[in-house]
Parts: sequence; C-alpha cells; structure tokens
Amino acid sequence: MIVKKYDEVKKEEIKKEDVKGTFIRWLIGPDSPAPHFHMRHFEIEPGGHSPFHSHDFEHEVYVLDGKGRLNTEGDPIPLEKDSFALVMPGEKHQFENIGNQTFKFLCFIPKEEQCYK
Amino acid sequence: MIVKKYDEVKKEEIKKEDVKGTFIRWLIGPDSPAPHFHMRHFEIEPGGHSPFHSHDFEHEVYVLDGKGRLNTEGDPIPLEKDSFALVMPGEKHQFENIGNQTFKFLCFIPKEEQCYK
Repeated sequence: MIVKKYDEVKKEEIKKEDVKGTFIRWLIGPDSPAPHFHMRHFEIEPGGHSPFHSHDFEHEVYVLDGKGRLNTEGDPIPLEKDSFALVMPGEKHQFENIGNQTFKFLCFIPKEEQCYK
Repeated sequence: MIVKKYDEVKKEEIKKEDVKGTFIRWLIGPDSPAPHFHMRHFEIEPGGHSPFHSHDFEHEVYVLDGKGRLNTEGDPIPLEKDSFALVMPGEKHQFENIGNQTFKFLCFIPKEEQCYK
C-alpha cells in the first residue's frame, strides 16, 4: 500500500517540441508496483499547452483545478474542475490552459506506455 | 472522445453488507469504450464507510475533497484532499469518512473488474 500527498512527488517540466509551461508528477508510475495503469498529475501554466498529437493508447483525465480546453480535430471542448475525459487511442488531442490560474488534472495511461517518461 | 462533468453521471447508493452512506458514479465504466481501466467517483457521507475487504485487483485512488482514512490490517492512514493511494491486489482496505463534509475520491480499477457494478 502506498499513500502520499501529490506534492511529495517530484514535479518535472516536460521539455519537448510543441509543449509549453507543462509539468508532470508520476504519482503512480513505472517505479511503483502498480499492475495495470499509471497515475500522472499535470500542471499547465496560463498560456501553456501539451502537444497536439495522438498515440495508440488512451487517456483517462479528471480536472482538479483551473480552466482549460481539450483541442481536437473538431471543435475545442471546454474543461473545468470536475470535468472528466476519455481520449481514445488514435484521437488527436491537446490540453491547453485558457485561464489565469494553473490548470491541474490527472491523466491515467496503461502501464506499458511511458508517455513523457 | 467523451467529455462530461462528473455530476452528469447518475449517482447510485451502494447497498451491500458492511457499507454505509457510500455512493458511486461510474464516470468511465463498462458502458464506455475504455480499453483498459474504469474511473469511478465515490462520495461517502460523514460516518460512512466502504466495506473492509480485499480482492485480487488493485485500486488507484485520488482524494478530491473531505477528510477520511484508509483502514488497513495495520494502522489507519489519514486521507485528505490531494492524497493518493495505491492499494495492491490482496491488501485489506476500507475507506471511511472521519470528517464533517462529504468525503470524495476517484477510484480506478482494471476493466475486467466490476466491483459494485
């Protein structure tokens, strides 16, 4: 059993192309004994965003704080505290902060994937 | 892609032995196309608790609000907003509200499991 507060875990800036002001914490990640999936905590600064991309695995996302949007190949979808999202494998997506506060969300992925690790 | 607010999903009381004042929303559940794992939203009323039990799959939990504790075979572990927990397969556990507000948390399980469904 592992129990911690999210801010006991190291926050790392994601330094990749098409990423701005985006930080990750691997709350339950490859270094844990989790059998099937990983829990990551994201913070995106005002004006920041993750890359507009797709991959062959899903995201399950729950918004903790702030005001953002999910950019897609269709219309952008607003996200706020207590929104959740399922992004299916192959669907293009980008998380963008469109507010004045830090946009915070959880994003779960299958264990075999190490997106941003 | 599915995007909703958590309260757009039906809240169901869990009516089982050794469960008190506990409600579930299957945000991403068996009715969704999620490939690997399910997202459930729990609310436990003051004085309420989930059962003290174990099973052969894991829980990944993130606390959204309120004050609770994770009862184990050892000492109970306090839980509050922004705590997270990994309960491994086979570990006995119970979530209990020890505060005056609703205790809210997310709990993720593998897709093949339908605990409380």
